[in-house]
Amino acid sequence: MAVFKHLVVVKFKEGVAVQDVLKGMEKLVSEVDAVKSFEWGQDIESHEMLRQGFTHAFLMTFDKKEDYTAFTSHPSHIEFSATFVAAIDKIVVLDFPSVVAKSPA
Amino acid sequence: MAVFKHLVVVKFKEGVAVQDVLKGMEKLVSEVDAVKSFEWGQDIESHEMLRQGFTHAFLMTFDKKEDYTAFTSHPSHIEFSATFVAAIDKIVVLDFPSVVAKSPA
Repeated sequence: MAVFKHLVVVKFKEGVAVQDVLKGMEKLVSEVDAVKSFEWGQDIESHEMLRQGFTHAFLMTFDKKEDYTAFTSHPSHIEFSATFVAAIDKIVVLDFPSVVAKSPA
Repeated sequence: MAVFKHLVVVKFKEGVAVQDVLKGMEKLVSEVDAVKSFEWGQDIESHEMLRQGFTHAFLMTFDKKEDYTAFTSHPSHIEFSATFVAAIDKIVVLDFPSVVAKSPA
């Protein structure tokens, strides 16, 4: 069965201590068992025309959609979300069953 | 060493045959060895306020940044990009070394 992905792409507000936000996010995912894996990155290569001002991507993986739904209503997530929303200038979120079209050999 | 990720988030133009675009993308990644893995998804869950009109996410993984650079200049990529750009209404692209903060158990 397809795993479920929660993708968050953001531009942080100027002056935000991004490292602190990242620490909070790592704490969050460590506290919630439903989050199977978590990876993130800061763009270093895209053209500004394509990046559209966004700088960071966060990608969480869940075994199934129901685990993601449970995560969104977890008290730790609700608490963190308030902090996170205050730190961001722009956001795009996509939640989707992942289709693996090419796997590592 | 961190793998390198190429993330593309788009909204397709109305009337575009998304299945055809997906087939083209799957053909592309199958042709280029530098693409280690490829997964994608169509949002089914995010709130419109957070989705911002975007509908699809595409995520390619490379062993290293140099492999991604080679991919961008590959003739198959250049050819596909022209088709892809014609099909999209909005796009955000982020290219980043992936930081794995939580791994599957």
